[in-house]
Amino acid sequence: MKISFCCTDFKAEPWLAGLRAALPQAEIEVWTPGAPAADYAVVWAPPQAFIDEQPNIKAVFNLGAGVDALTQLKLPPQMKLVRLDDAGMSVQMAEYVVHALIRHFREFDHYERDVVQGKWSYRRPRLREEFPVGIMGLGVLGQRVAQAVAQFEFPVLGWSRSPKTVDGVRCFAGAAQLPEFLAETKVLVCLLPLTTETQGILNRTTLAQLQPGGYVINVARGAHLVEEDLIELLDSDHLAGAALDVFRQEPLPAGHPFWRHPKITVTPHTAARTLRDESVAQIAQKIMRLERGEPIAGVVDHIRGY
Amino acid sequence: MKISFCCTDFKAEPWLAGLRAALPQAEIEVWTPGAPAADYAVVWAPPQAFIDEQPNIKAVFNLGAGVDALTQLKLPPQMKLVRLDDAGMSVQMAEYVVHALIRHFREFDHYERDVVQGKWSYRRPRLREEFPVGIMGLGVLGQRVAQAVAQFEFPVLGWSRSPKTVDGVRCFAGAAQLPEFLAETKVLVCLLPLTTETQGILNRTTLAQLQPGGYVINVARGAHLVEEDLIELLDSDHLAGAALDVFRQEPLPAGHPFWRHPKITVTPHTAARTLRDESVAQIAQKIMRLERGEPIAGVVDHIRGY
Repeated sequence: MKISFCCTDFKAEPWLAGLRAALPQAEIEVWTPGAPAADYAVVWAPPQAFIDEQPNIKAVFNLGAGVDALTQLKLPPQMKLVRLDDAGMSVQMAEYVVHALIRHFREFDHYERDVVQGKWSYRRPRLREEFPVGIMGLGVLGQRVAQAVAQFEFPVLGWSRSPKTVDGVRCFAGAAQLPEFLAETKVLVCLLPLTTETQGILNRTTLAQLQPGGYVINVARGAHLVEEDLIELLDSDHLAGAALDVFRQEPLPAGHPFWRHPKITVTPHTAARTLRDESVAQIAQKIMRLERGEPIAGVVDHIRGY
Repeated sequence: MKISFCCTDFKAEPWLAGLRAALPQAEIEVWTPGAPAADYAVVWAPPQAFIDEQPNIKAVFNLGAGVDALTQLKLPPQMKLVRLDDAGMSVQMAEYVVHALIRHFREFDHYERDVVQGKWSYRRPRLREEFPVGIMGLGVLGQRVAQAVAQFEFPVLGWSRSPKTVDGVRCFAGAAQLPEFLAETKVLVCLLPLTTETQGILNRTTLAQLQPGGYVINVARGAHLVEEDLIELLDSDHLAGAALDVFRQEPLPAGHPFWRHPKITVTPHTAARTLRDESVAQIAQKIMRLERGEPIAGVVDHIRGY
């Protein structure tokens, strides 16, 4: 069995070592143009040329939960694309979102600024009933985040493309129910897949529908957000702030207004890192299942885009 | 029925209004020296004179979970002291501790410093198995915090005076098991009641037994911690940091080294605020139960001190 590794932004050696240890029967090599076609591939943002050279590939494993870098390519319709499901990412997402939510709700940034000035000051406790949290995207990551947020007794709403039922979450679905979902949300968390339908979904029109004093947490993809629209709504005080982990251009360019905006917390696309051990184990297990003719989770629907 | 309100640090009017609405049959007044003795009292850090003037009081309700300000007084042994149980405090404690834990574990302070300098930088993800969280005190607050921490997949240990069993928590008890508990803990959370036994329990000897790179979160009372010992262990790099909400002297005095210590996060005793509506409802309900001769939760054992 030949496995091709074609991942920009990842150091190849430790991944090759991990995959070889997990699949000792396989030949696993870094892809170079013109290399023999592979049976399986492990990829992150591969070039079109890589895709074009794999006529008989059985599955392409994406080193992340979001496959937008893949679906932007020209793909043979029968090519089996597989996303990581969880692999240690959902708990990281829950951590990131809960930290951002509590930090905002409890005003820890304000306390920190007071403490730097040697001030011992109280702020009036806020009511969590007034901070309903709306989660866009109710896949593995969104459901885990919803569960973590609910534990702190915030009202939790969820919105997804197709109707879902999640314990403890008031679920909304589709374009028709988006306005109602937004109108009842104060803290908006974006965990959507990036598709042609969701590109730019966080824009002036949608964000203006959030409750006054709204807060935006984007841990999905930079292209979900129209960056200028966010700044406009922050500067007009309709929104209170944002915690952003992803950006249209990454690394965030020098001089970008997000770096120093007083209401924006920037992190460098670190909300949920791909963990090597968990990912290698998951990919190896899925390859073994496919070899035995068994079904696997995480297969991407090319049309839907996730 | 006469109810006396004797609370330093609380604005009396809104509490009186709340109590009067909840207990319309009662006469509720702010205590002044020489006022008629009461049937019930609502107190926070009352003077000894108040206690001395209540020969026949049926119960004294403390506006907080910790009764150390009361137990420092000379109290008639039969005086029924009642602590708030939960009343909206446990979820606040869970928020505070989870925020401090995640902020430290995920190194968000480091990211924030990098971002201020316009730096887009990665840090190697840490393993949560290497951050066991040890919670001292397994009452209502400690158990709720343990449950919240466990949800993020950290190993959770607990230590209490007498043996307890808590789902998902490795429980230790008593002085004999304290060394083992400390040796297996990296992030120490103090939620103990303040008693003669627990005063100064966070000191050079105990804190030195934590795993290297240990982190201390004190949300109980300032007197649990020997402040100089903490600084010594931070400066010698045995401990990585501390999040402190409570202090020997509050407000924290100007010039105290905690204000500007680079490894210490100070907050102004705000981890779990006493919430008026919840507290009034709880006290009113307990008074009605006592009037009907029914048992109530939260009665303090004078000897044990909580």
